[in-house]
Amino acid sequence: MAITITAFERSPDGGQGLARDTRVRWALEEVGQPYEVRLVSFAAMKEPAHLALHPFGQIPTYEDGDLALFETGAIVFHLAQHHAGLLPSEPAARARAIAWMFAALNTVEPPILELVTARIFEGDKPWAEARLPLVKDRVRERLKQLAARLGDADWLDGAFGAGDLMMVSVLLRVKPSGLLNEFPNLAAYVARGEARPAYKRAFAAQLAVNAANV
Amino acid sequence: MAITITAFERSPDGGQGLARDTRVRWALEEVGQPYEVRLVSFAAMKEPAHLALHPFGQIPTYEDGDLALFETGAIVFHLAQHHAGLLPSEPAARARAIAWMFAALNTVEPPILELVTARIFEGDKPWAEARLPLVKDRVRERLKQLAARLGDADWLDGAFGAGDLMMVSVLLRVKPSGLLNEFPNLAAYVARGEARPAYKRAFAAQLAVNAANV
Repeated sequence: MAITITAFERSPDGGQGLARDTRVRWALEEVGQPYEVRLVSFAAMKEPAHLALHPFGQIPTYEDGDLALFETGAIVFHLAQHHAGLLPSEPAARARAIAWMFAALNTVEPPILELVTARIFEGDKPWAEARLPLVKDRVRERLKQLAARLGDADWLDGAFGAGDLMMVSVLLRVKPSGLLNEFPNLAAYVARGEARPAYKRAFAAQLAVNAANV
Repeated sequence: MAITITAFERSPDGGQGLARDTRVRWALEEVGQPYEVRLVSFAAMKEPAHLALHPFGQIPTYEDGDLALFETGAIVFHLAQHHAGLLPSEPAARARAIAWMFAALNTVEPPILELVTARIFEGDKPWAEARLPLVKDRVRERLKQLAARLGDADWLDGAFGAGDLMMVSVLLRVKPSGLLNEFPNLAAYVARGEARPAYKRAFAAQLAVNAANV
């Protein structure tokens, strides 16, 4: 029984790798699990069949035999828990790695999502220009704190793991804004993530879908 | 060795229970673990001693012997994983409960955080009034999807668990806006959470701190 995930038939980013299926593809590649992809259109994502899998009508979803999961963080955590390669086995180190997953998704990503929203959904509003610096400053605050913690380490807590996979993925969303380059150690951290063979395979796989569907 | 968490010396909400220590207190009460609280001022939260525990200078943190954790989701997950009462033991049900934790924090909470930010940090901006309906509509979209999934069930997936604890906590942040009452089944869901003896003890404990420090 093959693992099946869902991804955008046409990603809004045209294949830049910022859609969340890339995070799950990356995790699958890190742990060496083959997978199949079912592509869904924006219309299909809001229909009952997909909503049964994902109550918020998003991608990715994950199916493996009788198990159906939604929510990127949960899927990556599930893979990390059941296959070697993404979480240390020592209990305290494992708990800290999980903490970095949650930190990426609930502390670092929310202001970055606000920045994405400000550009994409409010870019044409009369307040867009005046408001953008405030939104950017809230992102900067988080990046500054993260940069201070990372220092000159390669990864957040020892060897590369699920916390890094998620943090790098979140930081990739801020790369187009130029903010990441204000923090050279974070830019280098993200580049280390992108240089991993598993990331490269995941990126290429999502790009192949989007290049074919332009 | 006692579990020690940190909480605001004076919560910005004055004891409404919306600070994130309430989520951890609630989890500790559900699993029946006693705990101690170290109160930190806003100034102390940005100092090296606290930043060593929490890289983003926030509360709560969690210390238990040699283990130090930050990030609410990770702390609640750690408690749920090591004590009975917050996660089912059957593997698929357990994975789905974890998915709801991540969904609460990474899908439902971000637009709610945007609403909080719009009111607290941008409430005096010239665009505040015109922008607020857009922000509220993004919250409404998530609430509508969540309400559709919950239907007339008591909890999100079977018995009460960590996913519900986190989702109810996230929804409590939107209660003051009045939006929650647009979705009667969600309002009733949150009320069921608030009615749990463990929640009541957690709420009373944080209120006692804030009532004493006004």
